[in-house]
Amino acid sequence: MLLCDIGNSSYHFFDGKKNYKKNILDFNPQEITQQVYFISVNAKIKRELSFLENWIDLSRSVDMHNYYETMGVDRIFAVEALQNAVIVDAGSAITVDIVKSGHFMGGFIYPGVKAMNKAYENISPALSYEFNFDLDLETLPKNSQDAISFGFLKTLYSEVTSYDLPIVLTGGYAREFKKIFKDARVDENLIFTGMQKIIEEKKS
Amino acid sequence: MLLCDIGNSSYHFFDGKKNYKKNILDFNPQEITQQVYFISVNAKIKRELSFLENWIDLSRSVDMHNYYETMGVDRIFAVEALQNAVIVDAGSAITVDIVKSGHFMGGFIYPGVKAMNKAYENISPALSYEFNFDLDLETLPKNSQDAISFGFLKTLYSEVTSYDLPIVLTGGYAREFKKIFKDARVDENLIFTGMQKIIEEKKS
Repeated sequence: MLLCDIGNSSYHFFDGKKNYKKNILDFNPQEITQQVYFISVNAKIKRELSFLENWIDLSRSVDMHNYYETMGVDRIFAVEALQNAVIVDAGSAITVDIVKSGHFMGGFIYPGVKAMNKAYENISPALSYEFNFDLDLETLPKNSQDAISFGFLKTLYSEVTSYDLPIVLTGGYAREFKKIFKDARVDENLIFTGMQKIIEEKKS
Repeated sequence: MLLCDIGNSSYHFFDGKKNYKKNILDFNPQEITQQVYFISVNAKIKRELSFLENWIDLSRSVDMHNYYETMGVDRIFAVEALQNAVIVDAGSAITVDIVKSGHFMGGFIYPGVKAMNKAYENISPALSYEFNFDLDLETLPKNSQDAISFGFLKTLYSEVTSYDLPIVLTGGYAREFKKIFKDARVDENLIFTGMQKIIEEKKS
Protein backbone atom coordinates (compact mmCIF):
# COMPACT_ATOMS: atom_id res chain seq x y z
CA MET A 1 0.00 0.00 0.00
CA LEU A 2 1.31 3.38 -1.02
CA LEU A 3 0.46 6.66 0.74
CA CYS A 4 0.96 10.11 -0.76
CA ASP A 5 0.75 13.61 0.75
CA ILE A 6 0.67 16.16 -2.08
CA GLY A 7 1.80 19.71 -1.45
CA ASN A 8 2.37 22.73 -3.64
CA SER A 9 5.80 21.62 -4.80
CA SER A 10 6.04 17.85 -4.34
CA TYR A 11 4.42 14.44 -4.04
CA HIS A 12 5.54 12.98 -0.70
CA PHE A 13 5.26 9.16 -0.73
CA PHE A 14 5.41 6.57 2.04
CA ASP A 15 5.54 2.86 1.20
CA GLY A 16 5.19 1.64 4.78
CA LYS A 17 8.94 1.68 5.35
CA LYS A 18 10.57 4.68 3.78
CA ASN A 19 9.37 8.06 2.53
CA TYR A 20 10.54 9.88 -0.61
CA LYS A 21 9.57 12.92 -2.68
CA LYS A 22 8.83 13.54 -6.35
CA ASN A 23 8.79 17.00 -7.87
CA ILE A 24 5.38 18.09 -9.10
CA LEU A 25 6.85 19.51 -12.30
CA ASP A 26 8.26 16.25 -13.66
CA PHE A 27 6.29 13.45 -11.99
CA ASN A 28 3.46 11.77 -13.89
CA PRO A 29 0.96 10.05 -11.49
CA GLN A 30 -0.06 7.65 -14.30
CA GLU A 31 3.36 5.98 -13.87
CA ILE A 32 1.97 4.30 -10.76
CA THR A 33 -0.36 1.36 -11.34
CA GLN A 34 -0.78 0.12 -7.75
CA GLN A 35 -3.36 1.57 -5.37
CA VAL A 36 -2.38 4.92 -3.80
CA TYR A 37 -4.20 6.60 -0.92
CA PHE A 38 -3.59 10.34 -1.14
CA ILE A 39 -4.41 13.73 0.32
CA SER A 40 -3.68 16.97 -1.54
CA VAL A 41 -3.60 20.65 -0.61
CA ASN A 42 -2.98 21.20 -4.31
CA ALA A 43 -6.43 21.68 -5.87
CA LYS A 44 -5.22 21.33 -9.47
CA ILE A 45 -3.56 17.96 -8.89
CA LYS A 46 -6.48 16.77 -6.79
CA ARG A 47 -8.75 17.40 -9.79
CA GLU A 48 -6.40 15.57 -12.18
CA LEU A 49 -6.20 12.56 -9.89
CA SER A 50 -9.99 12.24 -9.73
CA PHE A 51 -9.74 10.70 -13.23
CA LEU A 52 -7.32 7.96 -12.11
CA GLU A 53 -9.06 4.99 -10.54
CA ASN A 54 -6.14 3.70 -8.48
CA TRP A 55 -5.61 7.11 -6.74
CA ILE A 56 -8.02 7.25 -3.77
CA ASP A 57 -8.70 10.61 -2.13
CA LEU A 58 -8.67 9.92 1.64
CA SER A 59 -9.94 13.42 2.55
CA ARG A 60 -13.48 12.17 1.83
CA SER A 61 -13.21 9.61 4.62
CA VAL A 62 -12.61 12.09 7.45
CA ASP A 63 -15.38 13.29 9.75
CA MET A 64 -15.07 17.00 8.94
CA HIS A 65 -17.44 18.43 11.56
CA ASN A 66 -14.56 18.92 13.99
CA TYR A 67 -12.60 21.02 11.49
CA TYR A 68 -13.25 24.10 9.36
CA GLU A 69 -13.76 24.39 5.66
CA THR A 70 -10.59 26.23 4.60
CA MET A 71 -8.29 24.21 6.90
CA GLY A 72 -5.48 22.47 5.00
CA VAL A 73 -6.07 18.72 4.70
CA ASP A 74 -2.46 18.02 5.75
CA ARG A 75 -3.18 19.70 9.12
CA ILE A 76 -6.32 17.58 9.55
CA PHE A 77 -4.46 14.31 8.98
CA ALA A 78 -1.66 15.30 11.36
CA VAL A 79 -4.30 15.99 14.04
CA GLU A 80 -5.98 12.62 13.32
CA ALA A 81 -2.67 10.88 14.14
CA LEU A 82 -2.53 12.06 17.78
CA GLN A 83 -4.59 12.16 20.96
CA ASN A 84 -2.86 14.90 23.03
CA ALA A 85 -0.35 17.23 21.44
CA VAL A 86 0.66 20.59 20.08
CA ILE A 87 1.58 19.82 16.47
CA VAL A 88 4.09 22.19 14.90
CA ASP A 89 4.32 21.61 11.15
CA ALA A 90 7.25 23.75 10.02
CA GLY A 91 7.13 24.24 6.27
CA SER A 92 6.67 27.32 4.07
CA ALA A 93 4.10 28.26 6.73
CA ILE A 94 4.27 27.01 10.31
CA THR A 95 0.92 25.57 11.35
CA VAL A 96 0.32 24.96 15.04
CA ASP A 97 -2.62 22.70 15.97
CA ILE A 98 -3.81 21.67 19.40
CA VAL A 99 -5.41 18.26 19.97
CA LYS A 100 -6.77 17.17 23.37
CA SER A 101 -8.24 13.72 24.10
CA GLY A 102 -8.41 13.16 20.35
CA HIS A 103 -10.38 16.38 19.72
CA PHE A 104 -9.14 19.25 17.56
CA MET A 105 -9.21 22.38 19.75
CA GLY A 106 -8.13 24.87 17.06
CA GLY A 107 -4.87 26.12 15.65
CA PHE A 108 -2.97 29.00 14.16
CA ILE A 109 -0.67 29.84 11.26
CA TYR A 110 2.72 31.54 11.56
CA PRO A 111 5.06 32.43 8.67
CA GLY A 112 7.84 29.94 7.89
CA VAL A 113 11.59 30.58 7.93
CA LYS A 114 11.88 31.91 4.37
CA ALA A 115 8.76 34.10 4.53
CA MET A 116 9.87 35.59 7.86
CA ASN A 117 13.38 36.20 6.62
CA LYS A 118 11.97 38.07 3.64
CA ALA A 119 9.59 40.04 5.90
CA TYR A 120 12.50 41.44 7.96
CA GLU A 121 14.56 42.11 4.83
CA ASN A 122 11.67 44.04 3.25
CA ILE A 123 11.41 46.34 6.28
CA SER A 124 15.07 47.30 6.07
CA PRO A 125 18.33 45.84 4.70
CA ALA A 126 19.63 46.43 8.24
CA LEU A 127 17.30 43.60 9.39
CA SER A 128 18.50 41.08 6.81
CA TYR A 129 20.07 38.30 8.92
CA GLU A 130 19.92 34.50 8.91
CA PHE A 131 18.02 33.26 11.98
CA ASN A 132 20.11 31.95 14.85
CA PHE A 133 18.49 28.65 15.93
CA ASP A 134 21.14 28.24 18.65
CA LEU A 135 19.78 31.35 20.34
CA ASP A 136 19.50 31.28 24.14
CA LEU A 137 15.78 31.89 24.72
CA GLU A 138 16.36 32.89 28.35
CA THR A 139 18.58 35.87 27.53
CA LEU A 140 17.16 39.11 26.17
CA PRO A 141 19.08 40.01 22.99
CA LYS A 142 21.59 42.82 22.75
CA ASN A 143 22.58 42.42 19.09
CA SER A 144 20.63 42.67 15.83
CA GLN A 145 20.81 39.04 14.67
CA ASP A 146 19.57 37.74 18.01
CA ALA A 147 16.95 40.53 18.27
CA ILE A 148 15.44 39.25 15.02
CA SER A 149 15.86 35.55 15.80
CA PHE A 150 14.23 36.10 19.20
CA GLY A 151 11.37 38.03 17.55
CA PHE A 152 10.71 35.12 15.21
CA LEU A 153 11.40 32.14 17.50
CA LYS A 154 10.81 33.13 21.13
CA THR A 155 7.34 34.58 20.48
CA LEU A 156 6.33 31.27 18.82
CA TYR A 157 8.01 29.31 21.64
CA SER A 158 6.15 31.23 24.37
CA GLU A 159 2.80 30.52 22.75
CA VAL A 160 3.45 26.85 21.83
CA THR A 161 4.75 25.89 25.29
CA SER A 162 1.83 27.63 27.06
CA TYR A 163 -0.49 24.65 26.33
CA ASP A 164 1.41 22.20 28.58
CA LEU A 165 1.00 19.40 26.06
CA PRO A 166 3.63 17.20 24.34
CA ILE A 167 5.07 19.03 21.33
CA VAL A 168 5.40 17.10 18.05
CA LEU A 169 7.44 18.59 15.21
CA THR A 170 6.95 17.70 11.56
CA GLY A 171 7.56 19.31 8.15
CA GLY A 172 10.73 20.20 6.26
CA TYR A 173 12.16 22.43 9.01
CA ALA A 174 11.37 20.04 11.92
CA ARG A 175 15.03 19.37 12.70
CA GLU A 176 15.89 23.09 12.81
CA PHE A 177 13.03 23.77 15.23
CA LYS A 178 14.10 20.84 17.43
CA LYS A 179 16.97 23.16 18.50
CA ILE A 180 14.36 25.57 19.91
CA PHE A 181 11.80 23.03 21.17
CA LYS A 182 14.34 20.79 22.89
CA ASP A 183 11.77 18.49 24.54
CA ALA A 184 9.73 18.04 21.36
CA ARG A 185 9.49 14.79 19.40
CA VAL A 186 10.28 14.92 15.67
CA ASP A 187 7.91 12.78 13.58
CA GLU A 188 8.40 13.05 9.84
CA ASN A 189 5.71 10.47 9.16
CA LEU A 190 2.98 12.11 11.23
CA ILE A 191 0.61 12.77 8.31
CA PHE A 192 1.12 9.20 7.04
CA THR A 193 0.23 7.87 10.52
CA GLY A 194 -3.01 9.87 10.34
CA MET A 195 -3.70 8.47 6.87
CA GLN A 196 -3.12 4.89 8.05
CA LYS A 197 -5.52 5.45 10.95
CA ILE A 198 -8.26 6.72 8.63
CA ILE A 199 -7.73 3.73 6.28
CA GLU A 200 -8.11 1.34 9.23
CA GLU A 201 -11.32 3.09 10.34
CA LYS A 202 -12.65 2.94 6.78
CA LYS A 203 -12.11 -0.83 6.71
CA SER A 204 -13.82 -1.55 10.01
CA MET B 1 12.64 74.40 22.01
CA LEU B 2 11.88 72.09 19.13
CA LEU B 3 12.46 68.31 19.20
CA CYS B 4 12.63 66.10 16.12
CA ASP B 5 12.67 62.30 15.69
CA ILE B 6 13.71 61.48 12.12
CA GLY B 7 12.70 58.18 10.57
CA ASN B 8 12.95 56.67 7.10
CA SER B 9 9.89 58.47 5.78
CA SER B 10 9.26 61.54 7.96
CA TYR B 11 10.49 64.23 10.32
CA HIS B 12 8.43 63.93 13.51
CA PHE B 13 8.43 67.23 15.45
CA PHE B 14 7.36 68.12 18.99
CA ASP B 15 7.19 71.76 20.08
CA GLY B 16 6.47 71.01 23.74
CA LYS B 17 2.73 70.98 23.19
CA LYS B 18 1.80 69.27 19.97
CA ASN B 19 3.53 66.89 17.58
CA TYR B 20 3.38 66.94 13.77
CA LYS B 21 5.08 65.26 10.83
CA LYS B 22 6.83 66.48 7.68
CA ASN B 23 7.52 64.23 4.73
CA ILE B 24 11.21 63.63 4.09
CA LEU B 25 10.79 64.10 0.35
CA ASP B 26 9.56 67.69 0.45
CA PHE B 27 10.80 69.14 3.75
CA ASN B 28 13.91 71.32 3.79
CA PRO B 29 15.53 71.44 7.30
CA GLN B 30 17.11 74.83 6.46
CA GLU B 31 13.61 76.34 6.71
CA ILE B 32 13.96 76.16 10.47
CA THR B 33 16.13 78.80 12.09
CA GLN B 34 15.49 78.07 15.78
CA GLN B 35 17.42 75.44 17.72
CA VAL B 36 16.30 71.83 17.08
CA TYR B 37 17.38 68.82 19.11
CA PHE B 38 17.12 65.75 16.93
CA ILE B 39 17.75 62.02 16.68
CA SER B 40 17.78 60.19 13.34
CA VAL B 41 17.71 56.54 12.27
CA ASN B 42 18.16 57.92 8.77
CA ALA B 43 21.92 58.02 8.17
CA LYS B 44 21.70 60.18 5.05
CA ILE B 45 19.72 62.96 6.75
CA LYS B 46 21.87 62.72 9.87
CA ARG B 47 24.91 63.48 7.69
CA GLU B 48 23.19 66.41 5.97
CA LEU B 49 22.15 67.92 9.30
CA SER B 50 25.71 67.83 10.62
CA PHE B 51 26.31 70.90 8.44
CA LEU B 52 23.50 72.92 10.06
CA GLU B 53 24.54 74.60 13.30
CA ASN B 54 21.07 74.90 14.82
CA TRP B 55 20.34 71.15 14.45
CA ILE B 56 21.85 69.38 17.49
CA ASP B 57 22.30 65.60 17.37
CA LEU B 58 21.20 64.34 20.80
CA SER B 59 22.42 60.77 20.17
CA ARG B 60 25.93 61.94 21.13
CA SER B 61 24.72 62.80 24.64
CA VAL B 62 23.57 59.30 25.61
CA ASP B 63 25.69 56.91 27.65
CA MET B 64 25.88 54.13 25.07
CA HIS B 65 27.54 51.42 27.16
CA ASN B 66 24.13 50.00 28.14
CA TYR B 67 23.08 49.58 24.52
CA TYR B 68 24.50 47.92 21.41
CA GLU B 69 26.02 49.46 18.33
CA THR B 70 23.40 48.62 15.70
CA MET B 71 20.44 49.41 17.97
CA GLY B 72 18.12 52.07 16.51
CA VAL B 73 18.50 55.41 18.27
CA ASP B 74 14.69 55.77 18.52
CA ARG B 75 14.59 52.60 20.66
CA ILE B 76 17.35 53.98 22.90
CA PHE B 77 15.49 57.25 23.55
CA ALA B 78 12.21 55.43 24.28
CA VAL B 79 14.06 53.31 26.87
CA GLU B 80 15.64 56.46 28.39
CA ALA B 81 12.11 57.80 29.03
CA LEU B 82 11.07 55.01 31.40
CA GLN B 83 12.19 53.16 34.54
CA ASN B 84 10.16 49.91 34.43
CA ALA B 85 8.35 48.87 31.28
CA VAL B 86 7.99 46.71 28.24
CA ILE B 87 8.04 49.22 25.39
CA VAL B 88 6.23 48.12 22.23
CA ASP B 89 6.98 50.50 19.36
CA ALA B 90 4.64 49.42 16.58
CA GLY B 91 5.82 50.85 13.28
CA SER B 92 7.06 49.22 10.06
CA ALA B 93 8.87 46.92 12.48
CA ILE B 94 7.66 46.24 16.02
CA THR B 95 10.48 46.72 18.49
CA VAL B 96 10.01 45.39 22.01
CA ASP B 97 12.40 46.67 24.68
CA ILE B 98 12.55 45.78 28.35
CA VAL B 99 13.69 48.32 30.94
CA LYS B 100 13.98 47.48 34.65
CA SER B 101 14.95 50.01 37.34
CA GLY B 102 16.10 52.32 34.58
CA HIS B 103 18.39 49.70 33.01
CA PHE B 104 18.00 48.38 29.46
CA MET B 105 17.70 44.57 29.74
CA GLY B 106 17.58 43.85 26.00
CA GLY B 107 14.91 43.69 23.34
CA PHE B 108 13.71 42.08 20.16
CA ILE B 109 12.34 42.96 16.74
CA TYR B 110 9.13 41.59 15.22
CA PRO B 111 7.74 42.40 11.77
CA GLY B 112 5.11 45.17 11.60
CA VAL B 113 1.54 44.85 10.31
CA LYS B 114 2.31 45.50 6.64
CA ALA B 115 5.41 43.28 6.53
CA MET B 116 3.58 40.42 8.23
CA ASN B 117 0.57 40.78 5.96
CA LYS B 118 2.87 40.52 2.96
CA ALA B 119 4.68 37.52 4.50
CA TYR B 120 1.43 35.50 4.71
CA GLU B 121 0.35 36.62 1.25
CA ASN B 122 3.69 35.53 -0.24
CA ILE B 123 3.30 32.02 1.19
CA SER B 124 -0.08 31.55 -0.45
CA PRO B 125 -2.95 33.73 -1.73
CA ALA B 126 -5.11 31.56 0.57
CA LEU B 127 -3.39 33.28 3.53
CA SER B 128 -4.03 36.82 2.33
CA TYR B 129 -6.32 38.30 5.01
CA GLU B 130 -6.46 41.58 6.93
CA PHE B 131 -5.55 41.00 10.58
CA ASN B 132 -8.44 40.88 13.04
CA PHE B 133 -7.41 43.09 15.99
CA ASP B 134 -10.72 42.29 17.73
CA LEU B 135 -9.63 38.66 17.97
CA ASP B 136 -10.41 36.82 21.22
CA LEU B 137 -6.95 35.74 22.40
CA GLU B 138 -8.41 33.12 24.73
CA THR B 139 -10.11 31.09 21.99
CA LEU B 140 -8.13 28.85 19.63
CA PRO B 141 -9.05 29.79 16.05
CA LYS B 142 -11.19 27.64 13.78
CA ASN B 143 -11.17 29.86 10.69
CA SER B 144 -8.40 31.14 8.40
CA GLN B 145 -8.52 34.87 9.19
CA ASP B 146 -8.34 34.25 12.93
CA ALA B 147 -5.68 31.52 12.47
CA ILE B 148 -3.45 34.12 10.82
CA SER B 149 -4.34 36.96 13.19
CA PHE B 150 -3.65 34.70 16.17
CA GLY B 151 -0.30 33.64 14.62
CA PHE B 152 0.74 37.27 14.32
CA LEU B 153 -0.78 38.77 17.49
CA LYS B 154 -1.10 36.07 20.16
CA THR B 155 2.51 34.89 19.85
CA LEU B 156 3.67 38.49 20.38
CA TYR B 157 1.17 38.93 23.23
CA SER B 158 2.35 35.77 25.04
CA GLU B 159 5.95 36.94 24.95
CA VAL B 160 5.31 40.63 25.83
CA THR B 161 3.05 39.83 28.81
CA SER B 162 5.50 37.25 30.20
CA TYR B 163 7.70 40.01 31.70
CA ASP B 164 5.09 41.16 34.26
CA LEU B 165 5.96 44.80 33.66
CA PRO B 166 3.75 47.74 32.63
CA ILE B 167 3.32 47.77 28.84
CA VAL B 168 3.75 51.07 27.00
CA LEU B 169 2.67 51.34 23.37
CA THR B 170 4.07 53.88 20.93
CA GLY B 171 4.52 54.21 17.15
CA GLY B 172 2.05 54.62 14.30
CA TYR B 173 0.11 51.42 15.08
CA ALA B 174 -0.10 52.01 18.87
CA ARG B 175 -3.89 52.46 18.86
CA GLU B 176 -4.47 49.25 16.88
CA PHE B 177 -2.33 47.26 19.32
CA LYS B 178 -4.17 48.77 22.29
CA LYS B 179 -7.04 46.45 21.25
CA ILE B 180 -4.75 43.48 21.93
CA PHE B 181 -2.82 44.86 24.92
CA LYS B 182 -5.88 46.15 26.76
CA ASP B 183 -4.02 47.14 29.95
CA ALA B 184 -1.24 48.95 28.11
CA ARG B 185 -0.70 52.71 28.16
CA VAL B 186 -0.43 54.50 24.80
CA ASP B 187 2.26 57.22 24.77
CA GLU B 188 2.81 58.86 21.41
CA ASN B 189 5.39 61.24 22.85
CA LEU B 190 7.58 58.60 24.49
CA ILE B 191 10.68 59.29 22.40
CA PHE B 192 10.30 63.05 22.98
CA THR B 193 10.10 62.41 26.73
CA GLY B 194 13.41 60.53 26.48
CA MET B 195 14.92 63.39 24.49
CA GLN B 196 13.78 65.97 27.08
CA LYS B 197 15.34 63.86 29.85
CA ILE B 198 18.70 63.71 28.04
CA ILE B 199 18.60 67.50 27.43
CA GLU B 200 17.98 68.08 31.17
CA GLU B 201 20.89 65.77 32.09
CA LYS B 202 23.13 67.55 29.58
CA LYS B 203 22.38 70.91 31.22
CA SER B 204 23.06 69.75 34.78
